Amino acid sequence: MNQEKNIPYKIYLEESEMPTAWYNMRADMKVKPAPLLNPGTLQPMTFEELTGVFCDDLVRQELDDDTAFVEIPKEIRDFYKMYRPSPLVRAYCLEEKLQTPAKIYYKFEGNNTSGSHKLNSAIAQAYYAKKQGLKGVTTETGAGQWGTALSMACAYLGLDCKVYMVKVSYEQKPFRREVMRTYGASVTPSPSETTNVGRKILAEHPGTTGSLGCAISEAVEVATTNEGYRYVLGSVLNQVLLHQSVIGLETKAAMDKYGIVPDIIIGCAGGGSNLGGLIAPFMGQKLRGEKDYRIVAVEPASCPSFTRGKFAYDFCDTGMICPLAKMYTLGSGFIPSPNHAGGLRFHGMSTILSQLYHDGYMEATSVEQTSVFEAAEQFARVEGILPAPESAHAIRVAIDEALKCKETGEEKTILFGLTGTGYFDLVAYEKFHNGEMTDYIPTDEDLAKGFAGIPKVDK
Amino acid sequence: MNQEKNIPYKIYLEESEMPTAWYNMRADMKVKPAPLLNPGTLQPMTFEELTGVFCDDLVRQELDDDTAFVEIPKEIRDFYKMYRPSPLVRAYCLEEKLQTPAKIYYKFEGNNTSGSHKLNSAIAQAYYAKKQGLKGVTTETGAGQWGTALSMACAYLGLDCKVYMVKVSYEQKPFRREVMRTYGASVTPSPSETTNVGRKILAEHPGTTGSLGCAISEAVEVATTNEGYRYVLGSVLNQVLLHQSVIGLETKAAMDKYGIVPDIIIGCAGGGSNLGGLIAPFMGQKLRGEKDYRIVAVEPASCPSFTRGKFAYDFCDTGMICPLAKMYTLGSGFIPSPNHAGGLRFHGMSTILSQLYHDGYMEATSVEQTSVFEAAEQFARVEGILPAPESAHAIRVAIDEALKCKETGEEKTILFGLTGTGYFDLVAYEKFHNGEMTDYIPTDEDLAKGFAGIPKVDK
Repeated sequence: MNQEKNIPYKIYLEESEMPTAWYNMRADMKVKPAPLLNPGTLQPMTFEELTGVFCDDLVRQELDDDTAFVEIPKEIRDFYKMYRPSPLVRAYCLEEKLQTPAKIYYKFEGNNTSGSHKLNSAIAQAYYAKKQGLKGVTTETGAGQWGTALSMACAYLGLDCKVYMVKVSYEQKPFRREVMRTYGASVTPSPSETTNVGRKILAEHPGTTGSLGCAISEAVEVATTNEGYRYVLGSVLNQVLLHQSVIGLETKAAMDKYGIVPDIIIGCAGGGSNLGGLIAPFMGQKLRGEKDYRIVAVEPASCPSFTRGKFAYDFCDTGMICPLAKMYTLGSGFIPSPNHAGGLRFHGMSTILSQLYHDGYMEATSVEQTSVFEAAEQFARVEGILPAPESAHAIRVAIDEALKCKETGEEKTILFGLTGTGYFDLVAYEKFHNGEMTDYIPTDEDLAKGFAGIPKVDK
Repeated sequence: MNQEKNIPYKIYLEESEMPTAWYNMRADMKVKPAPLLNPGTLQPMTFEELTGVFCDDLVRQELDDDTAFVEIPKEIRDFYKMYRPSPLVRAYCLEEKLQTPAKIYYKFEGNNTSGSHKLNSAIAQAYYAKKQGLKGVTTETGAGQWGTALSMACAYLGLDCKVYMVKVSYEQKPFRREVMRTYGASVTPSPSETTNVGRKILAEHPGTTGSLGCAISEAVEVATTNEGYRYVLGSVLNQVLLHQSVIGLETKAAMDKYGIVPDIIIGCAGGGSNLGGLIAPFMGQKLRGEKDYRIVAVEPASCPSFTRGKFAYDFCDTGMICPLAKMYTLGSGFIPSPNHAGGLRFHGMSTILSQLYHDGYMEATSVEQTSVFEAAEQFARVEGILPAPESAHAIRVAIDEALKCKETGEEKTILFGLTGTGYFDLVAYEKFHNGEMTDYIPTDEDLAKGFAGIPKVDK
């Protein structure tokens, strides 16, 4: 290993160097992201409308397009100290394996029990709920990453946590469920008999294994019909990107400390929480015209909202009860083909990232899943860490860029986000090892069906 | 959180402060651990005998009772940089929860894909195999923690890795198996048709689900009958404790840096690899008469080798083919009752730790598993990390000691080893949550059966 002088293999910031404020990209955007619309009136959602569902302080953050820096409350900074700073790692072993002149860095967010960056926003959302004097929060979870993070945050703060978990995941992924139970969350398979919407769906579709859209509907119903509860969400929202900016702020502080400047910044994109967090301060410089970076969003070829979606107002949920957001979308009825294994299955995208992409501040590319798992395995073998399939989308493109540098001889500095670990994704790894994993790229006809469900909104 | 001034919540050593040599406790022991005996001749195993099974350099380390410090080769230090230094964490949130004046610290070894401290010795053993020009190594694994660590080390060095995994684990714990496959290891369910001993056992016991003893026999046969292979082992051996001393050396360096002195040092004990590593430099001071510490080994009440075993020469394996070791043992035929969930199921104990315990340098205590899982859950909820059941044995006793301080008002400093994470132990957690976990303390009659199998050796 040819380590560079004076640059540690893994850079950990000192506690005193950790960010004390989140950064809000919207403050520096000339064109702000379009507001959420009330699906009934098609008027922008007001503070009053939103606070029926979300905590007051979080709604303030959601609607605030102007404040650049939001102080991180001390209680949240204390919690961050439990698992942050996360390391910025120089991928020396991967570079050597690839024989590339490129310098590859990754910010690793998986060293906590939730296994991903989701905890950064979970603790913030739980904190504001607690501060408001609420009893608890509700949410939905698919595979369980977000539900786990929220359970951990609620356990720490002594807040009740009700998680609606898509029934098929509840039954097929009992481990995630047990982690949530360890943290004291109540985990209900959705659809359930505990809500009106759940009972209705069960009556209409007996034996259904559930969907994320249905779980959202149940979680929202419980939050809005129980005194002292609000609903929380792990991605897509502006507030989530704000909290996740801690990833990018730490990364930039670590790079600045050692005089490292990235040429390319790569992140995987599902709803946008990790990508939006990683790029935040770098995008800020770009928006202010101070510095230019190549910023690349990576999405699955089977769920290509940036690369093949439409920039339009659409529902965020399949149940079409949530506000409309203007974003790159495949239509709220779009569901990735069943062979899709690697997460990042949301049909839309953060409105902030959608606007930035629309305005040319970032690129997007899509990759097929077998090539993603190849990259994951190659990375694991040399760098040690077993990556989450989501994270491996970014690894794939980082490797491809490093191989381009090998051809051209360029010594580019590549930064990518390693969002989490793959300990709960081993069924997918097994498929890959057994040669049973396939790729699927939706046809234009497939996409047309999803697009047909996008509402006509004249904005 | 009332953080002490100038002491970080988590202490990470700088790269330049990381240990460059392992520490060998035997050098400071007045009474050395008894040598391994050839089971045929009952004479001490010679270098020549041992090198048929183990790598030359590792046998040298195994037999070296005199060298206090063994330089860590640069290649191993480079690998250590991938996941070390591990953090020394002040358990502020646990202290607050317990309302104890005690100061609790834990050294967390779980932040790597193998999920435990096992990687510290796996990379060392793989390195010396590679240095000797071998093609590969063989080993056995039960639940798969050691097999995973070895697979990672071998993938990094480009060494072949053949793992014999107890068949019942192979079938019931497919996730660990898939992690090993990700790292390129060949994983064979044991007993198998690939060895003489495997075929013999299959012929005699068709349909057997295997045992660790059988898997050891297969791994040893493959190592000794294939050109360019040697056998490696993840615990019990002197060499393993030597490599694991990196845990204690880092811990002591971090404590010394901030002027922290532990009163009590607590570690879980199965074969002794983690405990022996954690206590090494502290025990060194104690052996040299420089300083006194209370050192406590914690074992499951269902497998109580220290607290209820005999100090005698015994076989290390149930197959009775390995050398005899003088240790605290329950008899090589002892198997914990089937309800035992939490690892630490070896019938014997490291010869070094056995001698130290015999000579009064450390204490031992045993705990029941439901109380261990209670401690695990309590810890997870406030400190965030989901602990391995093994590690939770140490948590249990650390909490108990902290509660004693609450009664007496003493501000003791407690250090314990948090060896790993529980992501692959969620079946046991589920049992605990469902109230289906039971305790079992073997009766004297149960133990007598195991003792009956201890050979009569007049040494």
